[in-house]
Amino acid sequence: MSKTFEKLQPYLDKSMALQTARNLFEWDDQTTAPFEAAEYTAKVVGILSDEYMKSLVNEDVKKLLKKLQEEKEQQELTEKERAIIRELSKTYEELESIPPDEYREFNELASVSNRKWAKAKKDNSYEDFAPYLKKIIELKKKFACYRAKKGQLPYEVLLSDFDECFMIPELDQFFEKVKQEIIPLLKEVAKKADTIDKSYNYLHYDIQKQKEFCRFLSGYIGFDFNRGVIAESAHPFTLQLHNHDVRITDRYMEDNLESAMFSIIHESGHALYEMNIDDSITQTLVGGGASMGMHESQSRFYENIIARSQEFWEPIYNRLQSTYPENLCNITLKHFIKGINKAAPSLIRTEADELSYPIHIIIRYEIEKMIFQDEVSVEELPKVWNQKYQEYMGISPTTDSEGILQDTHWSWGEFGYFPSYAIGSAVASQLYACMKEKMPLTQYLKEGNLTPIREFLRDNIHKYGAIKNTKQLLKDVCGEDFNADYYVNYLKDKYRKLYDLSI
Amino acid sequence: MSKTFEKLQPYLDKSMALQTARNLFEWDDQTTAPFEAAEYTAKVVGILSDEYMKSLVNEDVKKLLKKLQEEKEQQELTEKERAIIRELSKTYEELESIPPDEYREFNELASVSNRKWAKAKKDNSYEDFAPYLKKIIELKKKFACYRAKKGQLPYEVLLSDFDECFMIPELDQFFEKVKQEIIPLLKEVAKKADTIDKSYNYLHYDIQKQKEFCRFLSGYIGFDFNRGVIAESAHPFTLQLHNHDVRITDRYMEDNLESAMFSIIHESGHALYEMNIDDSITQTLVGGGASMGMHESQSRFYENIIARSQEFWEPIYNRLQSTYPENLCNITLKHFIKGINKAAPSLIRTEADELSYPIHIIIRYEIEKMIFQDEVSVEELPKVWNQKYQEYMGISPTTDSEGILQDTHWSWGEFGYFPSYAIGSAVASQLYACMKEKMPLTQYLKEGNLTPIREFLRDNIHKYGAIKNTKQLLKDVCGEDFNADYYVNYLKDKYRKLYDLSI
Repeated sequence: MSKTFEKLQPYLDKSMALQTARNLFEWDDQTTAPFEAAEYTAKVVGILSDEYMKSLVNEDVKKLLKKLQEEKEQQELTEKERAIIRELSKTYEELESIPPDEYREFNELASVSNRKWAKAKKDNSYEDFAPYLKKIIELKKKFACYRAKKGQLPYEVLLSDFDECFMIPELDQFFEKVKQEIIPLLKEVAKKADTIDKSYNYLHYDIQKQKEFCRFLSGYIGFDFNRGVIAESAHPFTLQLHNHDVRITDRYMEDNLESAMFSIIHESGHALYEMNIDDSITQTLVGGGASMGMHESQSRFYENIIARSQEFWEPIYNRLQSTYPENLCNITLKHFIKGINKAAPSLIRTEADELSYPIHIIIRYEIEKMIFQDEVSVEELPKVWNQKYQEYMGISPTTDSEGILQDTHWSWGEFGYFPSYAIGSAVASQLYACMKEKMPLTQYLKEGNLTPIREFLRDNIHKYGAIKNTKQLLKDVCGEDFNADYYVNYLKDKYRKLYDLSI
Repeated sequence: MSKTFEKLQPYLDKSMALQTARNLFEWDDQTTAPFEAAEYTAKVVGILSDEYMKSLVNEDVKKLLKKLQEEKEQQELTEKERAIIRELSKTYEELESIPPDEYREFNELASVSNRKWAKAKKDNSYEDFAPYLKKIIELKKKFACYRAKKGQLPYEVLLSDFDECFMIPELDQFFEKVKQEIIPLLKEVAKKADTIDKSYNYLHYDIQKQKEFCRFLSGYIGFDFNRGVIAESAHPFTLQLHNHDVRITDRYMEDNLESAMFSIIHESGHALYEMNIDDSITQTLVGGGASMGMHESQSRFYENIIARSQEFWEPIYNRLQSTYPENLCNITLKHFIKGINKAAPSLIRTEADELSYPIHIIIRYEIEKMIFQDEVSVEELPKVWNQKYQEYMGISPTTDSEGILQDTHWSWGEFGYFPSYAIGSAVASQLYACMKEKMPLTQYLKEGNLTPIREFLRDNIHKYGAIKNTKQLLKDVCGEDFNADYYVNYLKDKYRKLYDLSI
């Protein structure tokens, strides 16, 4: 190890420990903590966050980083060290470029703004939230300008927080293709809505049995219960302390069979990524996934491509049937597969099917771009939102709660996040095409053997953590750059067959 | 606030945040964390512990403390500030008096030693544990000598970690009385073992129903679910993040009705203490209970004095009966009360009844005193243990697992802890006598109204946290010093009646 790097290690260890503690508080808050704990616990988390910042942004680290940058140029560092320096520099530049006062102002505002958003959504009152959103946007613009490299647009600074490989030109091209190909397909599918009956999904499903079946599903795709746990929370999520402690949550509804099942598979996809990151890099700055886009590719690969396929269910559908014989005894596997893939234009992103999902993302991307290019005012946002839904989906929200107010992201200042979801789906399709070339994937699914799939992803993607970025990973696995054709073709093939379409 | 104290505040805040984080990791380890997480999480907790120590033991704090000691003498500090300074000085002196190398050596040893103990207990092999125990004792003696004030015995240094009000003279006197009065009583009770039939307790009791009933019991005595949660763990315990987040656990057995019920009441007693500490001192060094002894007085007050009384069960016994009609329909309230109070000489402390319990403590106290006065070797301990059980209980362990190896405390180096349990019982009896003078306690229980009891304890004990010590609290509540007569008389009255004895 480089001597300079060795001197940096204690700072990295300290920041890792503080970050892990913050993660545990986050987990606890979402799954366990009593209702009235929040105010007092916030004080603790605030202090840990300050200490986290101090552990990284200080004169010692600054000097060491400078020295390490030189060593990096002189090739004196290992690949792992170089990757850690790269991540540390990014974090350092971000934290250092923003005046601490404004950083604190933003964090306080974000927390208030999120509460205001939740209330405004409940009350269907955009005007109550708008002043906070305006302030959040102002600060985010300011921060993006502080952080922007020469020639970089503010929105691109934000996009790079979630996936540095996809800037405006790449995203414009990607989304243009999706719009051209998927919007007409979705309109055709909408016309044949009646051909798939999904009423079985909304019968009564005992929650204890759902929990057991979801646990089975998670283990079936490879979740390791010696290194992970499943809990309940209001919204499903994945969180890791390190690669030997990866946690997922689910939410169960008595009158919806699908919801918890596909959520647990989605989160298990994220969890497999984190569990399979190499021991040598866990608990370092490159010990998480490569990007939000790459992470979503893993969750969506399992949730949509794998778990909505007929082959996946062939070995296990009768287990589901015998869990709920009263509801499913007359629902054939074929019927079930059609049901879990049923698509239609929709208003709510989180409940959207695989086909309409990218359209939800495109609408948000286009609006975010407008916001950060000063092409729309906060007051005009609901109108623009509704117009875009009308134009792309053929339907339009009747309330702001199911329109502009539906997502929590903006209330936290998370602009630039949404594209990752679509990148994830597209990357998943590209990986799928490549994996089918390299292994008898369909056969494995029919045999109920998911191990080779998990091992392929582990050896080619997961283990690298954030040492490689999305594009490098894709290039190394598939031998080509990101290519949205795979995604569009996957969706077209699948939905043409499913709905027996001629377009 | 004193200007000097103000300068100390950031150090106190930082140590509080780090300590709270350690507590949350402890909670998580016992209730949630996956099996294989331990090694990687230990690294995180190790770093947080080092940071905790650094936040308190450093030149800045040392100077501030010195200055504050002077201000204390000059009466420039508030009562709260003075109490915090007192606690900080104690912690500071302890941490500073032990060389960091030896402190680390001890912590590493304790963790190994605990694992060795668990294995030795399982294998019934004292000789496998003895070398570790020897080393632990050596280090504890060394530390106690470093820390001892002039004329203070090493064992008293250890006792003072758990309750500074009870040193060897007080404990000798207390335990002598208990031995004289309780050992003969226990022998009489043993002769009448057959008069109480408790077989109903060991039938099949559905665990889900146990959980619901235990939750009811906890709320019934006043546990506030907005500020606390109940979880499961291998051994029941209480842990708080602050007074708005107090957590308890329980363990459920299918073939034992009592176990989980009295554990949850015991832990709820601890929890009420922590929940009722005043907002103005929570998250400070005096924001926990006054001492281990005082804490145990609250758990034992609820567990034994309140919840093993007939009056407590009068309003709720039919709820228990109708939870398990198949087992309890023919068990009258009177029969049940006799069952939950059945006493007998026993070998295992944690399963002991209220009457034989203090004898278990006395045996451990006498042995610990011998150890720290160099009157017994590690090799001789099993023999001494067994002799004392024979002498006081009239029975003797046939294996070391149910003898010298039964408790975990020594494997962690926790010498001086055991007396707190007996102090707790005695303090509880004294408080009970005093409360009966001040309120119609029996009537309240019969009416199912536990609020005045909780409020009395809150206003007279809980809210003060560690601002007052055990003796000050007793004096202020009862108007007299600690007096073991209350305890001995309580036990004698209760068990004479229960077993219809003439002694």
